[in-house]
Amino acid sequence: MPIRLFGLHAVEAALKNPNRRILRLLLTENAERRIREAIGEIKPPIEHVSPRDLDKLLGADTVHQGAALETEPLPEPDWHDLAASANGRPLIVLDQVTDPHNVGAILRSSAVFGASGLVMTRRHSPPLNGVLAKSASGALELIPVALVANLARALDELKEAGFTIVGLDGQGEQTIEALDWSNPTALVMGSEGKGLRELTRKTCDCVARITTDDALASLNVSNAAAIALHAALLARKPA
Amino acid sequence: MPIRLFGLHAVEAALKNPNRRILRLLLTENAERRIREAIGEIKPPIEHVSPRDLDKLLGADTVHQGAALETEPLPEPDWHDLAASANGRPLIVLDQVTDPHNVGAILRSSAVFGASGLVMTRRHSPPLNGVLAKSASGALELIPVALVANLARALDELKEAGFTIVGLDGQGEQTIEALDWSNPTALVMGSEGKGLRELTRKTCDCVARITTDDALASLNVSNAAAIALHAALLARKPA
Repeated sequence: MPIRLFGLHAVEAALKNPNRRILRLLLTENAERRIREAIGEIKPPIEHVSPRDLDKLLGADTVHQGAALETEPLPEPDWHDLAASANGRPLIVLDQVTDPHNVGAILRSSAVFGASGLVMTRRHSPPLNGVLAKSASGALELIPVALVANLARALDELKEAGFTIVGLDGQGEQTIEALDWSNPTALVMGSEGKGLRELTRKTCDCVARITTDDALASLNVSNAAAIALHAALLARKPA
Repeated sequence: MPIRLFGLHAVEAALKNPNRRILRLLLTENAERRIREAIGEIKPPIEHVSPRDLDKLLGADTVHQGAALETEPLPEPDWHDLAASANGRPLIVLDQVTDPHNVGAILRSSAVFGASGLVMTRRHSPPLNGVLAKSASGALELIPVALVANLARALDELKEAGFTIVGLDGQGEQTIEALDWSNPTALVMGSEGKGLRELTRKTCDCVARITTDDALASLNVSNAAAIALHAALLARKPA
């Protein structure tokens, strides 16, 4: 089934992605000009619309910036391929993080700091479209996302493939800053509020926390991911 | 004029804040039970409502979690007081960051990693209420926020008071990870897209960047703030 993307960066990145099959492209004159400045030629035929047309199509609260498109979902990668292409970069695993803003922001940080991909549960994860893609600011086209039916089993298979499974949690027994990233690492994060599920936690080789000043205040999950990915980057490419 | 707050953490934190004058408190039975579990006694009189009542009051898209209140705005602090109470922690300065989700998330990270306060421009900053408070997850009650009419003048005064003014930008000439935080530091961030305004940038003692893997991908401003605050914390309290 076709999905909708909107927002300048999300639409730009989709147009640049050769794996995207674009079905419809809706742009205001302003957005068309800005996208041409950013990427040059626009290949798919453009349907010119007014901002109000897009408000009607997407809802008045949607920050579409004059750009929207309909496209097939990307081909779904196999998580084994993500693990195989890690090349020193961590693999991000999300245990039922349901907020599309957070998952989108985690994709964006994955592109900035380098992650080989994102593995999520097929259920209780947000769809790979509109809001998530807007928050990802183009990174949905760069970071492969694999969906798995059974997360604990996928983590067990990752272990067998030589990965160290690190859970991230405020109650972790060691700090993320002191973590040894030299082994292939899967970094597992749970939803805000619920955190890691019990079975997920048991499957982890260790649970790490981020050093904080106020242990009572809790970190937004996308901010926690950014800090962990940044720490992993510094470990393989010192500042 | 009274403002509205909503969401369990935001409402809980406001009820715990002795400086908050609560005018109305609206809770579902569920939310009342959860807040009692978290903070014990609830002093202001409770108006019991249904989730649908709150949907109608706040809009159906608002994630109110069954809890809302009306309150006077907090007394506005003077930014000189924020600077004076820094005590080794950075002061965060936002140059027209307009998205309330981002400013709320920055407040939240300020509570987690320690910042002495937030200074924002009086114009082109989001109001200190609903969406911002929900994203701050209670931190609006913990981190003082001062508003200034003229940001460049405030930065000049901070310099005279002995602060080092560090701008944060992807094009920075040095890395944030190598920054010396031993001097009182004000960390200045601009809006996504526009970044630091020219006059703001000129006023900075230095402009620092976060080490990234892909220099083209850009970081969400609240994630950048979290990483910088985390770096500052590690400098004064090594992991």
